[in-house]
Amino acid sequence: MLAEYLINVRQKTPLVHAITNYVTVNDCANALLACGASPIMADDADEVEEITALCAATVINIGTLNQRTLTSMQLAASKANQLGHALVFDPVGVGVSRLRTQTAEKLLQDNHFTVIRGNASEIKTLALGKGSTQGVDASILDTITEETLSETLPFIHDFSKRTKSIIVVSGALDIVADAEHSYIIKNGHQLMTKITGSGCISTCLIAAYLAANPQEPLLAAAAAVVLMGLAGETAVKISHGTGSLRSNILDALSYIDGEQLEAGAKIVKI
Amino acid sequence: MLAEYLINVRQKTPLVHAITNYVTVNDCANALLACGASPIMADDADEVEEITALCAATVINIGTLNQRTLTSMQLAASKANQLGHALVFDPVGVGVSRLRTQTAEKLLQDNHFTVIRGNASEIKTLALGKGSTQGVDASILDTITEETLSETLPFIHDFSKRTKSIIVVSGALDIVADAEHSYIIKNGHQLMTKITGSGCISTCLIAAYLAANPQEPLLAAAAAVVLMGLAGETAVKISHGTGSLRSNILDALSYIDGEQLEAGAKIVKI
Amino acid sequence: MLAEYLINVRQKTPLVHAITNYVTVNDCANALLACGASPIMADDADEVEEITALCAATVINIGTLNQRTLTSMQLAASKANQLGHALVFDPVGVGVSRLRTQTAEKLLQDNHFTVIRGNASEIKTLALGKGSTQGVDASILDTITEETLSETLPFIHDFSKRTKSIIVVSGALDIVADAEHSYIIKNGHQLMTKITGSGCISTCLIAAYLAANPQEPLLAAAAAVVLMGLAGETAVKISHGTGSLRSNILDALSYIDGEQLEAGAKIVKI
Repeated sequence: MLAEYLINVRQKTPLVHAITNYVTVNDCANALLACGASPIMADDADEVEEITALCAATVINIGTLNQRTLTSMQLAASKANQLGHALVFDPVGVGVSRLRTQTAEKLLQDNHFTVIRGNASEIKTLALGKGSTQGVDASILDTITEETLSETLPFIHDFSKRTKSIIVVSGALDIVADAEHSYIIKNGHQLMTKITGSGCISTCLIAAYLAANPQEPLLAAAAAVVLMGLAGETAVKISHGTGSLRSNILDALSYIDGEQLEAGAKIVKI
Repeated sequence: MLAEYLINVRQKTPLVHAITNYVTVNDCANALLACGASPIMADDADEVEEITALCAATVINIGTLNQRTLTSMQLAASKANQLGHALVFDPVGVGVSRLRTQTAEKLLQDNHFTVIRGNASEIKTLALGKGSTQGVDASILDTITEETLSETLPFIHDFSKRTKSIIVVSGALDIVADAEHSYIIKNGHQLMTKITGSGCISTCLIAAYLAANPQEPLLAAAAAVVLMGLAGETAVKISHGTGSLRSNILDALSYIDGEQLEAGAKIVKI
Repeated sequence: MLAEYLINVRQKTPLVHAITNYVTVNDCANALLACGASPIMADDADEVEEITALCAATVINIGTLNQRTLTSMQLAASKANQLGHALVFDPVGVGVSRLRTQTAEKLLQDNHFTVIRGNASEIKTLALGKGSTQGVDASILDTITEETLSETLPFIHDFSKRTKSIIVVSGALDIVADAEHSYIIKNGHQLMTKITGSGCISTCLIAAYLAANPQEPLLAAAAAVVLMGLAGETAVKISHGTGSLRSNILDALSYIDGEQLEAGAKIVKI
């Protein structure tokens, strides 16, 4: 099943438009190419709508947002919605500054994102900012473990319900959830947090997988998350530090095939 | 012959000013260092003319152009022309948005580029935008093969004649041509399209080779294209995916010497 | 002794805010992670003060400065001073344009930097720009060797005295000096100049080491410089060119431990 999702990306080579940060943009572009997609990075307000229209999916990542690109993000997101394209949001660092929090809230308010992907802290900030948390103690998001899943999931399902977005929470466990269903993914390795860009890459892979697999977005997003985790696990085994880890993750993204993805997946549906 | 061109770069260590995109800028800087040149990336309108004046060659790459850098590109190009420095244009993505197409046309109109390097689609877009194609069916540029070369070359020679620029078309075959002569280069490997930056790096290497070899720009550009292709071929043999490919290409650019360049060159003059 | 400094960084994982250039920003972020710190890159005027306030140290690097980020640099530096945080300045390319020279001078005039790190030419430009050189011939900075140290050091101590900053001069010998004392460090390898970012990374490591070791900033800065040099030496031995060198330096930064740092240090106090 997951194999088909991978093969679809490689066969359709979807174009993905990313307005993203300048820290990890090169990794994002190379990761998209490695997984079989094709990247375009463009962020000037005068061209983003045309670029979005050419592509099959759009990524908005606020990692190094600035006044100039804020407008571009709004224009690209709006165009993607208008055309019914997959639109993925990575609210990097939301909560660390008013600019980020307000930008993220405005983007969510004005646009519909197919997927919102962040770490637990980012998702918590967004979810609380969107109003009611329905009596759920949001601190349960601080440490997501198998033991706390039954308390955490309702919080995430609720956020998904309100945003009509698939929510992806990255961490020791990854959660890919809509308003009703969840995939819990145990691929990945702790050392992936020691390189910059693991999250940003994951977001881009999700966009590519959504674009090539529109029939089942929840599983498409989950497949991308499994791929990233598996690439990390594979890379950790042959790396001698974080420099080679970064390079080996890109290698793994480029050679993992459908069969390996199926065999290596640690995913359960709840 | 090609060996001399490589040795001149290593001996003269020309300073190259690049106003380029933020996706592949690190690879461009490292590739310039690897080949023996020295990079300066600066893009603020308040300093680009001074930087250009300090350097021996200037690269303009519109991969992530924006309103702020448009002015800088014009100022740097104009200064390079005024000083008679080598000036190389990489029209990344020309044709995908009006902003890129208009920017590229304006840059070509206002400045003389020593070399214009792009893929077939980019060169076609530029050449058609510059007016008459003299009855040549531009679709011949879509798939450049040895069989179609006799039809393709007149189109490229014509574009070179009108722009007074050396035209470099990257693809399965690379063409380096002026109004009358062409070098056809078969170095390189299909997998180089699976990393971002192969084209941008090639453009930077051309600038370094022009700066260090002003006596024969056509062959200087061809030597740089051979070097990039040979580095790619060499790297593919020892890579395990696209992450290591990227790193191995930079390695190869740093260790390929004049003798290896001569021995590995697959180049013919037409 | 140096081991403690390394261990403190790994245990405290200080957050470092870097407003830096887009050429080497990814290497800077990965180097900070590798050494045990945690990076945040943010450069919009509307958020830099909040980010600086969250962090333990701030880096200002003018490698690709522009009008937009000039304001951000001033705001972040001022906030860091106000909070008493470590503040490190990397005056990349000062002297190559009026914009850089004026920016660097203004930053020095308006703010107190804990450390200023540059190559000999950059430090010389800054020091002369700051007024009197007290009869010292600044050309002695052009080639710092063991033989010329006795002439060079007074010049650096004087600059330190006037700026109240620790001065780090990178080169074949590295000097880490305040107004009275100097550490002379012979770690490192000539090939490190063949990748972009060695200096920028060193500056970031210094910031992390200052943040985690506030009790003795001079030795903290020296420890970071030793670490970078040792990582370079270690990496050169197993690299096949500059692509793998870059990756291996990040590996080494991530695995060198306190014991290795002590054993490998080539440092003397004068």
